Amino acid sequence: MLQQDTPLNKTIEFIAYIDQLKNVIRMNGLFDASRAENTAEHSWHAALSAVLLAPFANEPVDAQKVTYMLLIHDLIEIEVGDTFVYDAAEVAKQELAERQAADFVFNKLPDEVAATMRALWDEFEAMETPEAKFAKAIDRFLPIFSNLRNDGYSWRPHDISQSQVRQFTDKIRDGSAPLWDILNKLIEQAVDEGALLP
Amino acid sequence: MLQQDTPLNKTIEFIAYIDQLKNVIRMNGLFDASRAENTAEHSWHAALSAVLLAPFANEPVDAQKVTYMLLIHDLIEIEVGDTFVYDAAEVAKQELAERQAADFVFNKLPDEVAATMRALWDEFEAMETPEAKFAKAIDRFLPIFSNLRNDGYSWRPHDISQSQVRQFTDKIRDGSAPLWDILNKLIEQAVDEGALLP
Repeated sequence: MLQQDTPLNKTIEFIAYIDQLKNVIRMNGLFDASRAENTAEHSWHAALSAVLLAPFANEPVDAQKVTYMLLIHDLIEIEVGDTFVYDAAEVAKQELAERQAADFVFNKLPDEVAATMRALWDEFEAMETPEAKFAKAIDRFLPIFSNLRNDGYSWRPHDISQSQVRQFTDKIRDGSAPLWDILNKLIEQAVDEGALLP
Repeated sequence: MLQQDTPLNKTIEFIAYIDQLKNVIRMNGLFDASRAENTAEHSWHAALSAVLLAPFANEPVDAQKVTYMLLIHDLIEIEVGDTFVYDAAEVAKQELAERQAADFVFNKLPDEVAATMRALWDEFEAMETPEAKFAKAIDRFLPIFSNLRNDGYSWRPHDISQSQVRQFTDKIRDGSAPLWDILNKLIEQAVDEGALLP
C-alpha cells in the first residue's frame, strides 16, 4: 500500500483494487462459448459497444457519460458478485447489498471523484435519464446477443424460455428501438431453430 | 451473420467480432498473480484508469478522447496477437503487421465510424498529442504497476532488469510526471527488495 493518503495515491490504490473485477465470473459465456465471461471484460465490451451504438439511441445521449457509466456499472460486483438476471429472488435480495457495496467501493476514491462516480452509478441504476436508459439497453443487449451466437451458453443449463428473455427486451427498446427491432427478429429465429424454448 | 449491410447491422457484427479480444492473452498477470491477463480486460482497466487519472495528466486532456483511444488501442491484437514490450526484435517486426491489421479491423465498421476510429488509433500510435501521450502513459503504467504488486509475474520468467523497465518509464513521464514520480519510487523499492534485477 502507498503510505500517504493523497488523492493520487488513493487513485492508484483504487486502480489496484478494481483489478479484482477480472475475477468476477458471470453466467454468460463468450461468443465462441469457450468459457464464462468475467465482469471486467464485459464492462469493456459494453463501454465500447455504447460508443459504437450511440447514434442508434432513442434520444440524443452524452456518449462520454454513457461510456463512464458502463466502465463503472459493475464495480460493486467485486464485493457482492454477479447476479443471474433470471433469478428473480436473488435479484430482489441483492438490491440492498449492492447499494451498500457502492458505498464501500466508491468511498475508496478521493472525495470529489467518489461523489461523481457514485452519482453516475445511482443514475444508471435509476434508469430515468436518456444516458441511463441507453446504457442499460447495451448492458441487457450483450448477454442476449451472445446467447444467440453461442447456442444459449447461459440459457440452456437453466432452461430459459423466450418469455423470460423478453422480460428484458423492453429495457432495450426503451434505450434503442432499432437495436430492439433487430434483436427481436434474432430471438424469433432462435426459437424457430430450437436454441431458445418458446 | 446479419443479412443486410446496413450501418446498424455492420456495427452489431463488429460487436460480435471484437468479443475475440477476450481470448488474446498477454504476458502480464493479474494483480493477484492468479493468471495472465487478457487484452479485453486490460482495455477496460486502462480506460477506467485514464478517467480517474486524467486530473494528473501533464497537459489538460480531453478525457473522452483518451477513454475512446484506450477502449480501441489493442483491437488489432485480435489479428496479430500481443507483443511482449521487452522483445525489441518482435516489436520492430510487428509495426507493419499492426498497421495492416488496423486496416482490416476498422474497415469492418460503417465508413464514417471506421475513419474516426482509425484516426484515433493512428493518433494514439503517433504519441504526439496530449491525449495520445497520456493514453500511452496509462498503457505503460499498468503492466509495470501490476508487476510491482504481483512479484514480477511477467518480469521474473524473462529476467527483466530495472534498466529494461526504465526504457518505458520515460513514456509515463511524458504523459504524467506525478504518476512517473510515484512509479519511480516503487521501482527503486522493488530493486531493493529483490523483485526486480538492478
